[in-house]
Amino acid sequence: MSTTDELLANNAAYAASFDEPDLPGSPRRKVTIVACMDARLNVFAALGLRDGDAHVIRNAGGAVTEDVIRSLTISQRQLGTEEIVLIHHTDCGMTRFTEDELKRSIEAETGIRPAWAAECFADVEGDVRESIARINASPFIPHKESVRGFVYEVESGRLREIL
Amino acid sequence: MSTTDELLANNAAYAASFDEPDLPGSPRRKVTIVACMDARLNVFAALGLRDGDAHVIRNAGGAVTEDVIRSLTISQRQLGTEEIVLIHHTDCGMTRFTEDELKRSIEAETGIRPAWAAECFADVEGDVRESIARINASPFIPHKESVRGFVYEVESGRLREIL
Repeated sequence: MSTTDELLANNAAYAASFDEPDLPGSPRRKVTIVACMDARLNVFAALGLRDGDAHVIRNAGGAVTEDVIRSLTISQRQLGTEEIVLIHHTDCGMTRFTEDELKRSIEAETGIRPAWAAECFADVEGDVRESIARINASPFIPHKESVRGFVYEVESGRLREIL
Repeated sequence: MSTTDELLANNAAYAASFDEPDLPGSPRRKVTIVACMDARLNVFAALGLRDGDAHVIRNAGGAVTEDVIRSLTISQRQLGTEEIVLIHHTDCGMTRFTEDELKRSIEAETGIRPAWAAECFADVEGDVRESIARINASPFIPHKESVRGFVYEVESGRLREIL
């Protein structure tokens, strides 16, 4: 049995006791979370979110890439969110290799060097500040009154704000 | 008190009872979930995931964009995942506007037409199939033995596989 099959069995149990058929399509709390994909970060639990509360955008590093700008634009313009919460974290895999190392190993194996930026970083606090700056620089995101950035400590479960 | 402040108060309570300081940095179950950012989709709960089990990548629509290819590449090559689970869902906001409508309204307000694709779609099952095809077409993702796509029914909590 593959992991995917095990997750499907879990979902059958979840659906059997599902009792929220009428959640709103627009996030009830008008907030969007942008976070790293890291397996240790359980966004709903760590922020006390209930189903239907918030959009959740996640990628490698929690970097504000063009795709995150696209998602935030749609979140705010089409679905009514107004606040943005950015979450990077301690012990991030993105600090353990460089852009060149990753691309050299991919090119050596596939013959093709990716055209995209890897979005590695050395300093997690600096990377949170850069993410905030990228949002503030975007002409497409209308609500920038509450754009706040945090480091999630995987050792303690605590969010530390980066000012 | 802003929503962000309320979520921080929730996090203080979460951290106070946090008892998982030593979770592994690489996903224990070697699986990556790619899902829509929709607020109704609680990925951990719907799949029965525990903290540390899986990478979770999310964006508007659950579309396999270049940024998702970047994140999947890093997930598999740097952090050891091997299976991919794609999740779109019923009643998706991405089916309620067209690329042209969104871009015209943004251009009318900001004077700038976004260069990125909006990734709207009309047919959710077709969009799941396209997402699988984009992964299979990427030279950078090494493990394609288990790439499976699903529609999450927001009315029932159930995952339906798209074959």
